[in-house]
Amino acid sequence: MNIDIITIGDEILIGQIVDTNSAWMAKKLNDEGINVRQISSISDDPGHIVEAFNESSQKVKLVLVTGGLGPTKDDKTKDTICDYFGTKLVHDPSVLKNVEELLSKRGIALNRLNRDQALVPENSRVFENKLGTAPGLLLEKNGCSFIFMPGVPFEMKYLMEFEILPYLRENFQTSTIYHRTVLTQGLPESMLAEKISAWEDALPSYIKLAYLPSPQGVRLRLSARGLAQPVMEADVAGQVVKLQKLIAPNIYGFDDESPAASIGKIMAESGWTVSTAESCTGGAIARLFTENPGSSAYFKGSVVAYSNDIKTKLLNVDADLLLNHGAVSREVVEKMALESCKLLETDFSIATSGIAGPGGGTDEKPVGTVWIAVAGMGKVTSQQFNFGNDRERNIIRTGQNGLFMLRKLILTIKQ
Amino acid sequence: MNIDIITIGDEILIGQIVDTNSAWMAKKLNDEGINVRQISSISDDPGHIVEAFNESSQKVKLVLVTGGLGPTKDDKTKDTICDYFGTKLVHDPSVLKNVEELLSKRGIALNRLNRDQALVPENSRVFENKLGTAPGLLLEKNGCSFIFMPGVPFEMKYLMEFEILPYLRENFQTSTIYHRTVLTQGLPESMLAEKISAWEDALPSYIKLAYLPSPQGVRLRLSARGLAQPVMEADVAGQVVKLQKLIAPNIYGFDDESPAASIGKIMAESGWTVSTAESCTGGAIARLFTENPGSSAYFKGSVVAYSNDIKTKLLNVDADLLLNHGAVSREVVEKMALESCKLLETDFSIATSGIAGPGGGTDEKPVGTVWIAVAGMGKVTSQQFNFGNDRERNIIRTGQNGLFMLRKLILTIKQ
Repeated sequence: MNIDIITIGDEILIGQIVDTNSAWMAKKLNDEGINVRQISSISDDPGHIVEAFNESSQKVKLVLVTGGLGPTKDDKTKDTICDYFGTKLVHDPSVLKNVEELLSKRGIALNRLNRDQALVPENSRVFENKLGTAPGLLLEKNGCSFIFMPGVPFEMKYLMEFEILPYLRENFQTSTIYHRTVLTQGLPESMLAEKISAWEDALPSYIKLAYLPSPQGVRLRLSARGLAQPVMEADVAGQVVKLQKLIAPNIYGFDDESPAASIGKIMAESGWTVSTAESCTGGAIARLFTENPGSSAYFKGSVVAYSNDIKTKLLNVDADLLLNHGAVSREVVEKMALESCKLLETDFSIATSGIAGPGGGTDEKPVGTVWIAVAGMGKVTSQQFNFGNDRERNIIRTGQNGLFMLRKLILTIKQ
Repeated sequence: MNIDIITIGDEILIGQIVDTNSAWMAKKLNDEGINVRQISSISDDPGHIVEAFNESSQKVKLVLVTGGLGPTKDDKTKDTICDYFGTKLVHDPSVLKNVEELLSKRGIALNRLNRDQALVPENSRVFENKLGTAPGLLLEKNGCSFIFMPGVPFEMKYLMEFEILPYLRENFQTSTIYHRTVLTQGLPESMLAEKISAWEDALPSYIKLAYLPSPQGVRLRLSARGLAQPVMEADVAGQVVKLQKLIAPNIYGFDDESPAASIGKIMAESGWTVSTAESCTGGAIARLFTENPGSSAYFKGSVVAYSNDIKTKLLNVDADLLLNHGAVSREVVEKMALESCKLLETDFSIATSGIAGPGGGTDEKPVGTVWIAVAGMGKVTSQQFNFGNDRERNIIRTGQNGLFMLRKLILTIKQ
């Protein structure tokens, strides 16, 4: 079945926030075999809301709507909803009770704005929101169901997981889709496409391939649809085996796995530990490791040596070395990597030093110049990069390349 | 003027990637006084593309389209474009030259897929893409202009900044909008709304107020439209002064400023330095400081002490202290904060220790329990929090609260 997602609120249209809600919802729906036809962000102008509702209801039987249900005056959506569905707001005692309980837990007194959160359109189905004051609401018109949720991400997620998805499973028929994404690094899209061209052409017609470039490398998504789940899983697995024969060294993981999580898995399996010594990445690589549950099993810590003093004081980088080669040099990052293993008592480490920008560049070492070293088990390797002028991109790509280099090193050792 | 943004590609509809492009484009367009009416993500199905183009062209005079212009087989958009605009693909020698130059710089040989990137619809206006192989394209139908760009973020950004926005400035009339966002922390939305209710009611009708809740706190966006730029700026500034009288202690900055950047500004002005000693945040706070250009002026470094050994070895946290109070305790974070100032030789520091989850919780200290300390100028303060069960949310909220506590400390000292 097809559904639409509509997000209401100017903040997305003026670029003040990124719409992460819709991607999260789309993924969850997809896992249930529900196909998202279109995601639209619209303003909270009543005319626009009605227009978007009309367009969607002509094409799908279900629309999920987020945003516009907060307690404050800029949220006019509830009135527009009542007009559209030809109903009026009534007080819902169970919603009021929930609001009162929530606020008393937080030590906040109930005011008029909160009390109005308990006003819901008459004849709507109400989904209880245990994490916030605005409930989920379901209304129908012309054979199309509209489900409304607040736009605050953790409230929306709670409602989806514990109320809406269970409701959809019971009340809507879903077809089966199966996705498997192969994560690759180190090959540009066009070279990758050439390498796997024959394999791609031989794919059965019900398996669709998509190339998804990202800062981490190109992801190859295989999507099967319409057959029984076990058949699709087996067929896709078979295709992945064929693919691995073609580009094994470039595959670092599958589906949502991040490069850091993929390394973490190998570390945990082997009983190894890792640390980082970071200059230009400023803690970004430590962050990538520690965002993964269970990372304390293999990640011991990091020295973020943003200033040269700290490089000398904690990582024993000689002042002479800094003077002769500069902080952004092979000599310095290799020393940082080796000392990180010693100081933090880990088997492996990643070290970075570079000019993230926008300031600090010279003719010899322009902004974007980065040295990365990885060390472990008596080996140390390093490489120079230039990632260009954008500070955030420099930090991200340095992190990703550091992880890629570490992965290569540990795979060499495991062989 | 109103425009639409359309993003083509299944990856957003199945939730595999978050659409950050549209928010970035919307912000840039908004700065030019161009109003984004709707943002839509659609599949690369030709029927759906044509439908979306038709709908938009009835409502706006300009549509920006991203996605579907890569070199690989899943990108069918170019054919659909030719059908829709009633044209055909022709080879463009200048695009081919650009592709050849780009690839030779990267040491990649030209293959058929890359050569096809130089195929452009006849009669389209071509915008040169210096960072990638797919150019920008402009085509017109029924009085509506469509501009096509690749979906790779840094290529799209390059094309927007250096080709498309200059083109729009020359060829389209734009009206003026002025936004100013006041960033607040420490007041929930409903309490904030009550505090500023009279002020809000007295706003002139051409200034619109929006409440935007976020993990950093509630942002209040004032949007003025339709008057001369200097008039709007002065009026909004006057309203902000009135607002500051009501909630001064809760305002930490304006517009895009992050809490870390706002602290950094005070640090740089005062000649102060800062470091972090992070356990549960695993480098996240260092990352927040160092993502800001110029942060090396005040941020010296960090010890990410993820394991207890490191807390003892580098931050002198007694093994006894860890044993008696646990790593997640007032005693331990205060010691970490004080030692971070000493070891990294900084005026201020933030220290964190907590149970981010999903594992590691106990009855006494459940998942989400976090201690944060801030130290500096002979003072140290600490506070316990519980942020709940979600690992990523625990890391983010610990970081934000640490920054909020540090801000309070430095403002006390500055008074």
